[in-house]
Amino acid sequence: MRPMIKTKLALAALSLSLAASPIALSAHEPPANATVEQMADHALEYDKLAWDFVEGITTEVGPRQAGTEAEKRGREWAMAWMRKHGFQNVADEPFEMETWVPGTMHHAEITSPFPQPLVIQPLGGSASTGPEGITAEVVYFETIGDLNAAPEGSLNGKIAYISHSMTPTQDGSQYGFAGPARWVGASIAKQKGAVATVIKSVGTDYHRNPHTGGTRVVENMIPAGALTLPDAANLERMFARADGKPIVMKLVLTPENIGTQVSGNVLGEIVGRDPSLPPILVACHIDSWWNAPGAFDDGAGCGIVAAAALNVAKSGQPLRTIRVLMAGAEEVGLYGSVAYSKAHIDEPIGVGIESDFGADRIWQFQSNFRETNPQLHAMLASSVARFGVAGSSTVATGGADINISRDQKGPIIDLQQDGTRYFDLHHTPDDTLDKIDPVQLRQNVAVWTQVVGILANYPGDIATGE
Amino acid sequence: MRPMIKTKLALAALSLSLAASPIALSAHEPPANATVEQMADHALEYDKLAWDFVEGITTEVGPRQAGTEAEKRGREWAMAWMRKHGFQNVADEPFEMETWVPGTMHHAEITSPFPQPLVIQPLGGSASTGPEGITAEVVYFETIGDLNAAPEGSLNGKIAYISHSMTPTQDGSQYGFAGPARWVGASIAKQKGAVATVIKSVGTDYHRNPHTGGTRVVENMIPAGALTLPDAANLERMFARADGKPIVMKLVLTPENIGTQVSGNVLGEIVGRDPSLPPILVACHIDSWWNAPGAFDDGAGCGIVAAAALNVAKSGQPLRTIRVLMAGAEEVGLYGSVAYSKAHIDEPIGVGIESDFGADRIWQFQSNFRETNPQLHAMLASSVARFGVAGSSTVATGGADINISRDQKGPIIDLQQDGTRYFDLHHTPDDTLDKIDPVQLRQNVAVWTQVVGILANYPGDIATGE
Repeated sequence: MRPMIKTKLALAALSLSLAASPIALSAHEPPANATVEQMADHALEYDKLAWDFVEGITTEVGPRQAGTEAEKRGREWAMAWMRKHGFQNVADEPFEMETWVPGTMHHAEITSPFPQPLVIQPLGGSASTGPEGITAEVVYFETIGDLNAAPEGSLNGKIAYISHSMTPTQDGSQYGFAGPARWVGASIAKQKGAVATVIKSVGTDYHRNPHTGGTRVVENMIPAGALTLPDAANLERMFARADGKPIVMKLVLTPENIGTQVSGNVLGEIVGRDPSLPPILVACHIDSWWNAPGAFDDGAGCGIVAAAALNVAKSGQPLRTIRVLMAGAEEVGLYGSVAYSKAHIDEPIGVGIESDFGADRIWQFQSNFRETNPQLHAMLASSVARFGVAGSSTVATGGADINISRDQKGPIIDLQQDGTRYFDLHHTPDDTLDKIDPVQLRQNVAVWTQVVGILANYPGDIATGE
Repeated sequence: MRPMIKTKLALAALSLSLAASPIALSAHEPPANATVEQMADHALEYDKLAWDFVEGITTEVGPRQAGTEAEKRGREWAMAWMRKHGFQNVADEPFEMETWVPGTMHHAEITSPFPQPLVIQPLGGSASTGPEGITAEVVYFETIGDLNAAPEGSLNGKIAYISHSMTPTQDGSQYGFAGPARWVGASIAKQKGAVATVIKSVGTDYHRNPHTGGTRVVENMIPAGALTLPDAANLERMFARADGKPIVMKLVLTPENIGTQVSGNVLGEIVGRDPSLPPILVACHIDSWWNAPGAFDDGAGCGIVAAAALNVAKSGQPLRTIRVLMAGAEEVGLYGSVAYSKAHIDEPIGVGIESDFGADRIWQFQSNFRETNPQLHAMLASSVARFGVAGSSTVATGGADINISRDQKGPIIDLQQDGTRYFDLHHTPDDTLDKIDPVQLRQNVAVWTQVVGILANYPGDIATGE
C-alpha cells in the first residue's frame, strides 16, 4: 500500500540538509526558505505560537471539564485558533459519553478531637455525600497494601484515609507507585465497608490545592476526595497526637452524574504534497479537570504540537500530511482517544507522537522502531542532540491520546519531558499559565519542529524504512 | 522608681560570662548549670520547644479567627502548653470586641466575555454581597493612585479592580508600597460609587490561595475580596484581550458582623528574683485569619518567645520576670495589644520585644536605646553576632503586639527576621507547619534566648543604664 522509494537516497539528502543549517538567530523572523533545521533553531529562540495557544486557551476559556459547555468552548476556541493560523481541514468530531461533574460543595472538617477545616476536592467519578454530608471516624492506612489487607467489613461505617508518599522524578515514574491510592483506593475501601475515602493528594507540592483525578467507579460508588499534602500531614499528626481517641471527620462532597453529554475531538491538518502517504499524527488533549485551567495539562501540549506543525509548514509544504489531534475527554477516561481510534482505525497513521507531560524541557528521544528502522531512529535522535535531548533504547509506548497508533500497532515516538515539577501542578488549581517557563516551552517546540519536520518529509515506511 | 546599681560592674561580669562559654554541642541536653550563652548555643542545635508549640497549635487548633470559638480554643491550648512547660501566673485576660466573620460563600467568576471561575476570599471587615451575589462590570486600576484620581461617581454600579505589584524583600518594606490597595482600596472605591472591590492579593507567591487581611471599614461598607496572583494575572490578560468589550464579574461573598464577642490575651511568666524590677515583655499573637493555620503568622512567634523564656529559666532563675504576652485579635485590629496596654499602662515594662514576622532567620538587631545606653546596645548586638545577626543604627519601633512599650515610651528591641518568604504565606491557607524550616526556627530561638537572657539579668534601667 505504501509507495516504495529510494529511501537511502532520501535519507542522505535529509542528512545533508541537517548538516548544512546556517542559523540566523539575529532575526526574529525565520530566514526566507528556511529549512526544517533552521525553523527548529528559530523556534528555540523565538517561537511565540505555543505560548500564544496556551495563554489564549487558559485566559479565554480556563478550566474545561469533559462533557461540559466549558470544554465545548475550548474546542471552539482551538478550532478558531487553528483556522487563524492556517491549518486546513479544521473540524470537530463529536462523540457522546457519560458525564460526571464535581458539584459545588467541597468541604471537609475534623469535628473531634481537634476541630478544624481541611481542604478537599472530590475525585472524578466519585459519589455524593448529599449536601448534609456524612460524619464518621477516620481509619488510617499507610499504604494501599495495608488497605487491601484490611478484613471485609472492618471499615463498616468508617472513612478510609490512605496515605502514601510521592517523590518528584524526571521521568514521572513515581506516579505508578503513588497513583493506585487514587485510582483504586475508594473501590477497595468500599469493598471493606467504608462509607467514604479520603486520600493524600497524588502530588509533590505543599500548597493547599488538592490534586483531583479519576478513580475507578464500582457499583454503589462511595464519596471520595483528595486532601492537600499539608492537610494530609496535619491529619497524620492528629493520629499521632490523639492518644487513641477517634478522629472524626465531616465530609460534604456533592458531585453528580449528569448522563450522556457531547464531547469531541478537534482536528486540523497541514496537508502534505502526497496525501496518499500515511499522515504524521501529533496529539494532545483539549480538556482539563474543572479545578485546573490546564496550562501544563495540557494546554502547553496542544500549543507545542500545533506550533511544530506550523513551523514545519513554514519550511515548505511537507511530503506527508501532519494531522493535529486535540483529544476531548482525556482526563475522565481517554474517551476522545478511543473515539478517534474507533472512527479512523482503517486509515493508517505514519507515526503517532503525543505531548502531555507539561511544558518543561525534553530530555530523551524514544521510538518503537529502533530495531526495525535503525537509520531513521538514529537520524532523529542525532537531529535533536543539539537541543540537549539524549537517545534511548527504551521502546516508546506512546501517550494517552494516540490509542490509534497502539491499536494499529504502528510507529510511535515519545519525546520525554522533564516531569520533576509536573506533579506539583497536575490536576490542581495551580496549573496556571505562570507556571510555564517560556524558555523550556520553546525547547519543546524546537525539538518537535525538528522531529516532525524530518518525519513529514520522510518518504519511506517509518516502521521499516522500506 | 528603678533600683540604682553599679551597672558597669554588672556589665563587666556579663561580658566575662559571654566570653567564656564552652559549647557542649555533643549533648542533646544542655550542660548542667548552663549559662545563658550555653543555652543559646544549645538552642541553635537542639531546641524543640518552639517547634513543639507551633506544631501543636497548628495541629490541635488550626485556624483561630479573632472573637470565635476557635480563637478561644487557641488560648486554652496555649495556656495548657505554658502550664505544662513550667510557666507561672498563666492567665487569660479577656476583652470584648466587635467581631467580623468571613461567612461560607466565597465565589467569583467572569461571566463575559471569557466565562470562568476565579479564586477569591473576602477582606476582613468587608460587607456581604448576599448569597445571590452581585454582577457588574470590572474597572481596571493599575495603582491605588489611579483609583484615587478617578472622578466621584465614575464607578457607579461598577466593581473596582486594583492591581499593584509586590516584590519579596528581606525587610518586608514592600508591604508599605503594596499594602494600601488592601488597606484602603475598598473605602476609596466606595467613595467613587463602586459596588465592590477586588484586589490582586498583597503577596508574592503564584499559588491559588488568596491573601486576606483587614481593610478600612467605612459607613455602608462594600464587599471586597482578594484574588490570587494567578487569577489577577488572568484577569489582566482578559483586559488586554477583550478588544474593549466589558469584563463582567459575578461576586458572591457572605461575611458577617456578629456583634460583640470575647477575645483575650494569654499571659505567662518566668518569675524573676526581684519582682520589683520591671519585667521583660516578650510578645506574639495567638489569633490567625480564618483561612490560615497560622504557622508563620504567628504560631512560630509564640513558640520562639516562649521557648526563649524557658531556655533562660534553665540557666537559673533570672533577676527580672520574663512575661510572655500572646495577644488576641491582632489580625483584625491589634485589639489585644491595645487592651493589654490599657489594662497595664501603669506597670512599667523593662523592655518590649515581639516576634511576628515568620520563622526565618534573624539577620539584624535593633534597639531604641543605642544612644541612651550604648554599652548595653553594643553588648546585646555583639552577643548575637555569632548567630549571623548584624547590628544596626536603625531605631527599633516594635511590633504590633507591644503597644504598651510605645505607649510608655519605653525600651524596645527589634530582632529583624528575614521576610523574603513571608509574603508568600501571609494570611493564606498556605501558612502551614511544613513551611517552617526547623534550622532557621532554632536560630530564632538561639538569638532570643541570648538577648532575653542578658536583659532578664540586667540590673539597671535598660533605657539609660542607670
